[in-house]
Amino acid sequence: MKIIGFGDYLIHFSPFGNERFMQADSMRVSFTGAEANVCAALSLWGEEVSFVTRVPENALSEKGLMFLRSFGINTRHITRGGKRMGLYFLENGASVRPSQVIYDRMDSGFTEAVKEDFDIPAIFDGADVFYLTGITPALSENLMDCALAFCKEAKKRNICVVYDVNFRPTLSSAEKAGGFLKKLAPFITHLVGNEEHLKMLLGIESAFGEDSRKHRLRDIVTQARTILGIPHIAVTVRRTLSASDAITYAAFLCDEEFAVSPEYHTHVVDRVGSGDAFSAGLIYGIAKGYSVADTVGFAAASSAIKHTITNDINFSDPDEIRKLMNNGAKDVRR
Amino acid sequence: MKIIGFGDYLIHFSPFGNERFMQADSMRVSFTGAEANVCAALSLWGEEVSFVTRVPENALSEKGLMFLRSFGINTRHITRGGKRMGLYFLENGASVRPSQVIYDRMDSGFTEAVKEDFDIPAIFDGADVFYLTGITPALSENLMDCALAFCKEAKKRNICVVYDVNFRPTLSSAEKAGGFLKKLAPFITHLVGNEEHLKMLLGIESAFGEDSRKHRLRDIVTQARTILGIPHIAVTVRRTLSASDAITYAAFLCDEEFAVSPEYHTHVVDRVGSGDAFSAGLIYGIAKGYSVADTVGFAAASSAIKHTITNDINFSDPDEIRKLMNNGAKDVRR
Amino acid sequence: MKIIGFGDYLIHFSPFGNERFMQADSMRVSFTGAEANVCAALSLWGEEVSFVTRVPENALSEKGLMFLRSFGINTRHITRGGKRMGLYFLENGASVRPSQVIYDRMDSGFTEAVKEDFDIPAIFDGADVFYLTGITPALSENLMDCALAFCKEAKKRNICVVYDVNFRPTLSSAEKAGGFLKKLAPFITHLVGNEEHLKMLLGIESAFGEDSRKHRLRDIVTQARTILGIPHIAVTVRRTLSASDAITYAAFLCDEEFAVSPEYHTHVVDRVGSGDAFSAGLIYGIAKGYSVADTVGFAAASSAIKHTITNDINFSDPDEIRKLMNNGAKDVRR
Amino acid sequence: MKIIGFGDYLIHFSPFGNERFMQADSMRVSFTGAEANVCAALSLWGEEVSFVTRVPENALSEKGLMFLRSFGINTRHITRGGKRMGLYFLENGASVRPSQVIYDRMDSGFTEAVKEDFDIPAIFDGADVFYLTGITPALSENLMDCALAFCKEAKKRNICVVYDVNFRPTLSSAEKAGGFLKKLAPFITHLVGNEEHLKMLLGIESAFGEDSRKHRLRDIVTQARTILGIPHIAVTVRRTLSASDAITYAAFLCDEEFAVSPEYHTHVVDRVGSGDAFSAGLIYGIAKGYSVADTVGFAAASSAIKHTITNDINFSDPDEIRKLMNNGAKDVRR
Amino acid sequence: MKIIGFGDYLIHFSPFGNERFMQADSMRVSFTGAEANVCAALSLWGEEVSFVTRVPENALSEKGLMFLRSFGINTRHITRGGKRMGLYFLENGASVRPSQVIYDRMDSGFTEAVKEDFDIPAIFDGADVFYLTGITPALSENLMDCALAFCKEAKKRNICVVYDVNFRPTLSSAEKAGGFLKKLAPFITHLVGNEEHLKMLLGIESAFGEDSRKHRLRDIVTQARTILGIPHIAVTVRRTLSASDAITYAAFLCDEEFAVSPEYHTHVVDRVGSGDAFSAGLIYGIAKGYSVADTVGFAAASSAIKHTITNDINFSDPDEIRKLMNNGAKDVRR
Amino acid sequence: MKIIGFGDYLIHFSPFGNERFMQADSMRVSFTGAEANVCAALSLWGEEVSFVTRVPENALSEKGLMFLRSFGINTRHITRGGKRMGLYFLENGASVRPSQVIYDRMDSGFTEAVKEDFDIPAIFDGADVFYLTGITPALSENLMDCALAFCKEAKKRNICVVYDVNFRPTLSSAEKAGGFLKKLAPFITHLVGNEEHLKMLLGIESAFGEDSRKHRLRDIVTQARTILGIPHIAVTVRRTLSASDAITYAAFLCDEEFAVSPEYHTHVVDRVGSGDAFSAGLIYGIAKGYSVADTVGFAAASSAIKHTITNDINFSDPDEIRKLMNNGAKDVRR
Repeated sequence: MKIIGFGDYLIHFSPFGNERFMQADSMRVSFTGAEANVCAALSLWGEEVSFVTRVPENALSEKGLMFLRSFGINTRHITRGGKRMGLYFLENGASVRPSQVIYDRMDSGFTEAVKEDFDIPAIFDGADVFYLTGITPALSENLMDCALAFCKEAKKRNICVVYDVNFRPTLSSAEKAGGFLKKLAPFITHLVGNEEHLKMLLGIESAFGEDSRKHRLRDIVTQARTILGIPHIAVTVRRTLSASDAITYAAFLCDEEFAVSPEYHTHVVDRVGSGDAFSAGLIYGIAKGYSVADTVGFAAASSAIKHTITNDINFSDPDEIRKLMNNGAKDVRR
Repeated sequence: MKIIGFGDYLIHFSPFGNERFMQADSMRVSFTGAEANVCAALSLWGEEVSFVTRVPENALSEKGLMFLRSFGINTRHITRGGKRMGLYFLENGASVRPSQVIYDRMDSGFTEAVKEDFDIPAIFDGADVFYLTGITPALSENLMDCALAFCKEAKKRNICVVYDVNFRPTLSSAEKAGGFLKKLAPFITHLVGNEEHLKMLLGIESAFGEDSRKHRLRDIVTQARTILGIPHIAVTVRRTLSASDAITYAAFLCDEEFAVSPEYHTHVVDRVGSGDAFSAGLIYGIAKGYSVADTVGFAAASSAIKHTITNDINFSDPDEIRKLMNNGAKDVRR
Repeated sequence: MKIIGFGDYLIHFSPFGNERFMQADSMRVSFTGAEANVCAALSLWGEEVSFVTRVPENALSEKGLMFLRSFGINTRHITRGGKRMGLYFLENGASVRPSQVIYDRMDSGFTEAVKEDFDIPAIFDGADVFYLTGITPALSENLMDCALAFCKEAKKRNICVVYDVNFRPTLSSAEKAGGFLKKLAPFITHLVGNEEHLKMLLGIESAFGEDSRKHRLRDIVTQARTILGIPHIAVTVRRTLSASDAITYAAFLCDEEFAVSPEYHTHVVDRVGSGDAFSAGLIYGIAKGYSVADTVGFAAASSAIKHTITNDINFSDPDEIRKLMNNGAKDVRR
Repeated sequence: MKIIGFGDYLIHFSPFGNERFMQADSMRVSFTGAEANVCAALSLWGEEVSFVTRVPENALSEKGLMFLRSFGINTRHITRGGKRMGLYFLENGASVRPSQVIYDRMDSGFTEAVKEDFDIPAIFDGADVFYLTGITPALSENLMDCALAFCKEAKKRNICVVYDVNFRPTLSSAEKAGGFLKKLAPFITHLVGNEEHLKMLLGIESAFGEDSRKHRLRDIVTQARTILGIPHIAVTVRRTLSASDAITYAAFLCDEEFAVSPEYHTHVVDRVGSGDAFSAGLIYGIAKGYSVADTVGFAAASSAIKHTITNDINFSDPDEIRKLMNNGAKDVRR
Repeated sequence: MKIIGFGDYLIHFSPFGNERFMQADSMRVSFTGAEANVCAALSLWGEEVSFVTRVPENALSEKGLMFLRSFGINTRHITRGGKRMGLYFLENGASVRPSQVIYDRMDSGFTEAVKEDFDIPAIFDGADVFYLTGITPALSENLMDCALAFCKEAKKRNICVVYDVNFRPTLSSAEKAGGFLKKLAPFITHLVGNEEHLKMLLGIESAFGEDSRKHRLRDIVTQARTILGIPHIAVTVRRTLSASDAITYAAFLCDEEFAVSPEYHTHVVDRVGSGDAFSAGLIYGIAKGYSVADTVGFAAASSAIKHTITNDINFSDPDEIRKLMNNGAKDVRR
Repeated sequence: MKIIGFGDYLIHFSPFGNERFMQADSMRVSFTGAEANVCAALSLWGEEVSFVTRVPENALSEKGLMFLRSFGINTRHITRGGKRMGLYFLENGASVRPSQVIYDRMDSGFTEAVKEDFDIPAIFDGADVFYLTGITPALSENLMDCALAFCKEAKKRNICVVYDVNFRPTLSSAEKAGGFLKKLAPFITHLVGNEEHLKMLLGIESAFGEDSRKHRLRDIVTQARTILGIPHIAVTVRRTLSASDAITYAAFLCDEEFAVSPEYHTHVVDRVGSGDAFSAGLIYGIAKGYSVADTVGFAAASSAIKHTITNDINFSDPDEIRKLMNNGAKDVRR
């Protein structure tokens, strides 16, 4: 299956281990972006992937492209332009101290990109899936235009459009983010959203509580489907016990089938990117023709295992994820 | 508010991560000292702070002063003299293996300091709070004299004297430490002490058990007040589940008001300095005119968050501590 | 007491912290081998130890010998020959992601070793204990011959032979491993085995379940004794809750005495080598004339504390282990 | 002497050792700025220093202030505002490969600063020297206005204004940079400029060649004085043999006295900041009342020793610099 | 231009900085291989490149493929098989202490590869250049067969075959290496060889000495052409002054044209891979249609700049290399 | 040959690379001592070596013993006692900036050692050479007594006593150091001294200048022999061009034979310990029965190669040193 991702691509600086920003005399340098992270995992897992963004010409963005290519991602449709890449600084939390992010992403080459920067028909040549998140339309008006143009091309070619809500309060209000989502909904075939985000953006609530998990989640995705008209909707749930402990699970409504994943309790090494690992898992399940239950199960396990990996990308292979699904060996694998 | 701290200042060597001393081919270099740690936090939080000690003249103590100044601490009253700084080696424990400390602090410039080394009236000019711990009088007789002279000057100027018991069995017997405390008590306005230390030094017990926390702690601080005549007394409690897990809470008797903080269960990154973070929090609460409950709550939260930070200093700002008090967001702060 | 260890000796490469192999741009370099790890701990603890293996002549094996000597191990009987040392790559897991090992140990100097490479009588001169694991006979037929020759010499001299089952499915089938064990059993005085391995290799089961721990373990070691005729048998149990959490305990049947150790729940820093730490503890208990209960208790505590130490060797001294046995201070040791 | 510095303040990222940007998976994090570097050295050397800039409110700029304060710099007049700090990426060259810099400094809090952001009279209270470089007016028109306002205040108070030409072709044309210089010249008392920059900005040439160094440099500074009317002018010369080898020297015309420093041939560890080390040395010489020859000699030695230090700041004390001037001991100082 | 490389691919372990093997507690992990290094540089420079080798299936070789892909190299024709990758350990020398290499490359997946492992027609589809070195036929007889088969396919398609002599005395005798070269010569269009290697393998000498460089080199390549019948021959010269200092230059005979490059005196950061950087430069010159003088000049500059870069690959872009050829700016590039 | 070393043993802290003390947030941890360094090299080279010192009981000195044992040194005669080990801080210089040492060695377990701490007859059992330097008697009066007692035992047993002058102005005056030397001279068989130190301590001068090296050195050692009556005297010469470049050579007068070594020009990685490497080389030459010229040649080459190695110990094997003597291959050794 051939997947197209379109989104921002940022330099990712992070102090080592548990150091706080104020203590850091060196930082790990990597690259990130919601869509890029999904593309990296899918490409590692053997899918054909092309990632589209816009970066300036300098040695740092060159290194950024090397990072993408290392996963096997096709970087041919990445456009050069603008003066800078966005920056993303992550301080890793622990226990009662949450992780913290500082963004410096304005005026980047991507934020200033316009439709004309991309050869959209060439990008979509042979594609099966188009992946996009709510961050892109929130970054600038021109990017909302780009998102719409890409979605229209996808629809024209009758290919899947997977959209992760990825609501970021620092980029837009919930109202505005709901607006983007509604505008793009006619083109979206698969929606992924965190339970809280879906509620906030669509103004929905469920009468069912924590103790009737299945009814609650089915209620929420059904309401979302009614509002948006999107046929396949996955909802993810996170209970953050502390910066070091999380419980996660998810559900997937796929036409009339509905399944809830097992829950995973993880000791957190690095939680960032676990949402992207879910989306990658979902697309993988779809690509491989998994059942609805296996698809959401694989996606939830992919998300869980990501919590144990430093960096925003799920460096796990499908075998490892399936072993976790099957509650396989936990001891050293020799 | 202007705070004066007076105490030892040591070079702090520590193997990285979970390495044991025997495995360490490099060590992290920093600086520490109970009073210096309190001063650093208060200065980071915006208070005016002057730290007083005595160090030799060489590039290592120069770096030590740079470290203090980086927090904004006034180092003008630090005297130069002696041949060496004391050393403090910390091996970080984990789970069933406790952390270990090796001290090499004898014959340091500070240990040999005498009253005449300090311009006491100049030091106290404009001061509101004087902070001292039980380590200083335990280091040498001349330092006990210094402590007394500083305390008298504080009393003369009618300013707060905050004293942390900080009992160290390797420096003195409990009896001797109790003696220092009683001798200084007439000058002390606020006492901070770990429950176990207060019991040992003052020979007190409580009939109330673990299950009646509030009564037990009120009982202890009331007895301590009766013995010492100090009007404000805070007591801290630590339940060490393992080197990786701790439960902490505290109580504060302030004239006739008494409050117990919530308890914090933390996964430990580095526990050293959590007592100093408590004292810093207490002084901050007093400086800001917090209620008794908020003061001990802020101090307990400050102590809890310190457990998640490598190094002996609480690199958290008051906002973060208040968010923890208010049980705020635990997930990534973007 | 003088202990002889005989076994493979490998270069140990490991990414730092929680990095996955695919993320590692540098690796920690150390050395390992089941028997070498046991020898290192015993030598650190003050016993006289000689380790016997075969390594090629180059700067890397020279460094390997330096590592052994640093613990005080006598390396005089290590033979030089062959073209390479075996390699062992360890990726440290976390939470839901298990640790992973890649071996590259074939065609090493040790694997190709033959009896004639070793001056067996000289090696055993003055020895009290001979230590061997099931890995050695599984590596090559010539090494099975060596193992037999060493064991015969030990029997001739009437010294203890301690054998750790250490079953590795990637090196041999359970059937074959059971065969080695039965062939060597007449020479073995003390057997150490993981519960699962003993069951697999000897085809035994116990009717007692999890809830009657003592009966179950006594049942297993008694059956093993009936089959093998070995007088002293220790069995270890591991419940792997996740890559970060383990419960371990053990039992020891010594002639007619039988004792079960307390169980230890550890937060895992590095689990590899915890079996070797058990064997080292057992031999130490025997050497010091500990009671059966204290011997298995010391061995179980040694194994538990190893989980908190990076690297395959138990860098703890007997005092620390005894403090853990006695449920001693868990807080910082100043 | 009290010195005021005014200029940009950037986060400084640099790959370790000789790594190229494309190879760097971690970077050293520090802070830099031509005027900040001069201030840091002067404050280390015991002068009273206040640095003025504008930075946003976040943990990274907080760390930036900690860095300044560690040298003892007064940060009270640093204004908070804007969305970001500028970034400076340095790749350290070697031999035939020159060092490379990537700037990402546009739209920073400082670039957008206006006169009204600063309390100019308060800043200059008690000041003896004002230090500025040609980078500031080249960054934005409003900063040119600021520079002028600061210079006027300095003139009003009759204090020294030291201006380093610091021409950066990526920020402005030589013509424009010459324009700034001429506009500010009436306020400048001491000018520092690289030989090539003076020639380019002022359109001057010397008929004397390499072999008559003294005449050539005197010729250039005399021409510069004629054009600009600045009474004291220092000129620095650099012969870059390779990225690893440099020859540097300087001359200083001070009223009618003129002196040329010795030349230093240095093996380069990190050449960046060597110009700032010259300016710091010059101001120090003036502050200490050194002779013209000693002033330029101290400045040239300060610049030379900076080549051996990683980071943009001259972490040397005046004693070390004087020892170098006096051709002192080169062997290990025990 | 599309270039095919075929050769071994090894894991590259190296102590950091100047550490000796015996001192190294961690090592840098990378990947290398003469042909892979050439491919990496050409792919970085924008050429279309496919590298062909054989590696086992495990996480380490997966990381090896990620490294190749990061440069943009097509890894589609890399075959999976065998039990291990070869290893290459490099200790970096300094001054009077030469660098040292330990190989552990026998029994690798590549060494055991046979013709049938590769889909040779598919590999050569659309290719313009085939690159091979003398290491491949020296590794095993089956690899000599592979080399021949690849060369024949190249000849059939009438494409360039570039062969670097790369004589390794530890892999074969000079006589044997000369034999491989002569056997492959009918298929080779461009030969690259170190002066000493050409003399040893072909048994030639030149009557011209050091002082008539041009005549000497023309003499050698002319003799080589007479013996081998290869139309284009480049010869490289290295004068190793110490492990830290080298002088290098080269000459190229191309049909009847002959040119000698300038000589480069470099301070060495890491000399390994400088020969591969020469070959990459030569192929690039050919691809771009450079003159004979510019081709050998670009190749010699590429080789010189490699000496300043850690790792075996020339992480420089053609612009930097051309600037060095043109004796461009040596100072910091801002 | 069995060699006994007796001297101080210190923890060695050093910032990484070219960092200055003020920049160092971590330091390399190792161990050093003039006599220990000589012992380490000789033990690496296959001699039987016992090192004698006195260290306290803690985990840091335990690690110190592990370091000694790693070289194969016998640590059985090291006595435990005292409260601390001495410390040695080294800042590595570069080019015009010399290296700097901070000592903190007073009140160490060794400094307080007395004769009765050592079982001198047992120490000397089977010994051939006793090695001592002028640092030991300079540390304390009781150590001067120890030195004398050890020397007398050596004389009684008629074994070689090698004494390195190792004058340290911070420990004693030249006059006092000359006094120690004269008092110990009757027991010394081989003296090693730096040219400058010999002149200072013995008050001698040579009329021969730099240009008649052989005459000058023979003149100096002959005068020294006349004064001290020691039959074999080696003199070393160092010309420190900068912290990065040194020229070294030596001469050896052995009864009536006299030889001067070649001179070595080295680019310096770490110069500390190069004197100890000379002494180790000299003892090795004597042990192997080398000629006088080969002995001083080997010692001078050993000293030269040490300059290229980080840490105070010569991690080179005799083969490498002989290759350097024979002007062997300088290029990569594959």
